[in-house]
Amino acid sequence: MTVSESSDHAAVSSLSSPEPSPWSHWVDQSCQMVEAAGQWRTPRTFDALGTSGLLDDNPTPVISFASNDYLGLTSHPEVIAAAHEALERWGSGSGASRLVTGSRPVHRALESELASWKGSDQAVVFSTGFAANLSVLSVFGSKGTRVFSDELNHASIIDGCRIARSEVVVYPHGDLAALDIALAGAPGRAMIVSDTVFSMDGDAVDVDGLLDVAARHRALVVLDEAHAVLGPDPTFRADVDLLRVGTLSKTLGALGGFVAGPRRFVELLVNRARPYIFTTAPTPADAAAALTAVRIVRSAEGRALTRRLADLVGRVAAQVGRDGHPSPIIPVVIGEEADAVAASGDLLVQGLWVPAIRPPTVPPGTSRLRVTLSAIHTDAQVDRLVRALAALGLGMPVREEGGRAS
Amino acid sequence: MTVSESSDHAAVSSLSSPEPSPWSHWVDQSCQMVEAAGQWRTPRTFDALGTSGLLDDNPTPVISFASNDYLGLTSHPEVIAAAHEALERWGSGSGASRLVTGSRPVHRALESELASWKGSDQAVVFSTGFAANLSVLSVFGSKGTRVFSDELNHASIIDGCRIARSEVVVYPHGDLAALDIALAGAPGRAMIVSDTVFSMDGDAVDVDGLLDVAARHRALVVLDEAHAVLGPDPTFRADVDLLRVGTLSKTLGALGGFVAGPRRFVELLVNRARPYIFTTAPTPADAAAALTAVRIVRSAEGRALTRRLADLVGRVAAQVGRDGHPSPIIPVVIGEEADAVAASGDLLVQGLWVPAIRPPTVPPGTSRLRVTLSAIHTDAQVDRLVRALAALGLGMPVREEGGRAS
Repeated sequence: MTVSESSDHAAVSSLSSPEPSPWSHWVDQSCQMVEAAGQWRTPRTFDALGTSGLLDDNPTPVISFASNDYLGLTSHPEVIAAAHEALERWGSGSGASRLVTGSRPVHRALESELASWKGSDQAVVFSTGFAANLSVLSVFGSKGTRVFSDELNHASIIDGCRIARSEVVVYPHGDLAALDIALAGAPGRAMIVSDTVFSMDGDAVDVDGLLDVAARHRALVVLDEAHAVLGPDPTFRADVDLLRVGTLSKTLGALGGFVAGPRRFVELLVNRARPYIFTTAPTPADAAAALTAVRIVRSAEGRALTRRLADLVGRVAAQVGRDGHPSPIIPVVIGEEADAVAASGDLLVQGLWVPAIRPPTVPPGTSRLRVTLSAIHTDAQVDRLVRALAALGLGMPVREEGGRAS
Repeated sequence: MTVSESSDHAAVSSLSSPEPSPWSHWVDQSCQMVEAAGQWRTPRTFDALGTSGLLDDNPTPVISFASNDYLGLTSHPEVIAAAHEALERWGSGSGASRLVTGSRPVHRALESELASWKGSDQAVVFSTGFAANLSVLSVFGSKGTRVFSDELNHASIIDGCRIARSEVVVYPHGDLAALDIALAGAPGRAMIVSDTVFSMDGDAVDVDGLLDVAARHRALVVLDEAHAVLGPDPTFRADVDLLRVGTLSKTLGALGGFVAGPRRFVELLVNRARPYIFTTAPTPADAAAALTAVRIVRSAEGRALTRRLADLVGRVAAQVGRDGHPSPIIPVVIGEEADAVAASGDLLVQGLWVPAIRPPTVPPGTSRLRVTLSAIHTDAQVDRLVRALAALGLGMPVREEGGRAS
């Protein structure tokens, strides 16, 4: 774009600058495209510890049904205490990448605990879950590999596929028969990558079915278990190479990601994954919080929290006609964008913060409320949510008059 | 790769499994390639607060000259106190991405402070510096843009160029004349991206010269200032669109990255950058630590720390024949890989942890020690380093007998 081409922009918005910047013009146009689509977003702040707090643009406190803090461990006293101790012992940052001088004993302890938890030889921690997926896809998705990726996989997997040098085959969501046929038609070194619980629908893949398919084709399986606090857990089998990707940022209440798997696979990541090699290590406090969180998850207390979460999921899912729903992400599909936004606004007035999810994040005509639950939501909070959804005519399969059930 | 092709591997290493996995074979081969090149790496842990601590594989304490904690703020009492307070107020994690419910007031305060510090309209924080560069390159490196990238740019810029949909032109390191010619030969929307201080040589780009070139071609400039604790600072000019990328993980003692720039440019990142939209927000403790660190950097105390660091750089640089060296990353080029490794080992025996940097990170024949200094290194620590380098025959331009000066 030459300077003269941006003259329209100069006339409209900038009389003071003699030569308007072609970049400003392009950026303005790009912003206007987002705005025209009704998709303009700015971060609103939420001043909260746990589920209740104040949004900056709302006058009264709200209960959040929007967080991924599924077991409430971000506000658990032992998790917070572990972070305090790490701050005192090692300071506020790691100061370098893991392979230079950024590794503290807490990083190694965390990796041991994660490997044990996932039943794997070894685990490696990344500074974000996004980086974990970029790393797995770029290292194992090398030339000569074919990657088979579920069409609803997380953005970090999609971007990982773009960094990978492999051919990528996107298969229909959860369609194991289609996956099987695609693999049969493309012999060679294959990798299957799938979320186990999908972030927008909260639905779960048939993990053991997927492992069956993988075994038939000797494919490497990469499972992203970021949202799998209630399962499904893959059954161990000797004839499938399995990498389990997880996050420290959701159930584990901190920030980061990890990959657990066979020793040599993890060692190759350590030696080849650029987002690992060239990023500062997680802070000692974040690593310590996650370590204590894993230990809680694996304890009797963690099992009780998980049961509590499953109970709450059952109550809300029943209200919206989704009995047996497998995860704490419960979509309440409404249809039109404007209706979903209006419903979210109605709930906010009642002190319930339930985001509306719209295109392009979900397909047109499936705009929805997305409820996410935590084990620390109180019965009273969940009762309020269920009553409010009913009052909006959402769900309620048991009521004669029906409604816009999902 | 079919199962039968991996029979060699079965014979060597796996008699128990009836059908060895083609993936295990590929992973073993890949690992062996790294090992055969002498480049196998495992993280060693460093148990430390500040510059002194214990490596897990060394019997006695060492002084680290390997961290990017340039002003020592990871161990600053006020920085640590801010992280403690944030933990108490908001818990151990943010629980969601910034645009869902992951934004706390501390994120906004940090972004305001960063924008003010960098003289920009606005700033946006990312969970890692790696994510900041991926975001800038993918959003502004869209179709129709040409990206001009210095050949020694950081890995995250290189990977960002791979995610970008733009054409990428790599220009010779720091060669502004070549850059000028390349831009002249490719009219259209251009973006120049460069580190201001390069991580392996510690050298600085001629920032104002680069802005002159950019102005001639109306190119957007992206400067990655991750290591620029001692400058160079770009001179503001109205005829160049400038994005300043920085990190929270080095001088600022926490974890994360940021981009500061004109308001609409930053807003476009917020609305389009996938590593921002799809990653959990920085933890409140990390954001609070960085916020306090920025305030310290901007205070009289910060200016004194910066002067102290510059003095230490001057002393070490003089020893190795690099008077006027512009950054706390001081390469001591030795040449052969084995010699660099031996020198690093000699220093470690003396309690000085100075990593050897080898191919492929640096070109063959330029293996080196890489000294990084911090304002909190004591005079005695730096004296020990300078004496030890002299005893190894490194640097010392003032001594008649010379040595392997860099």
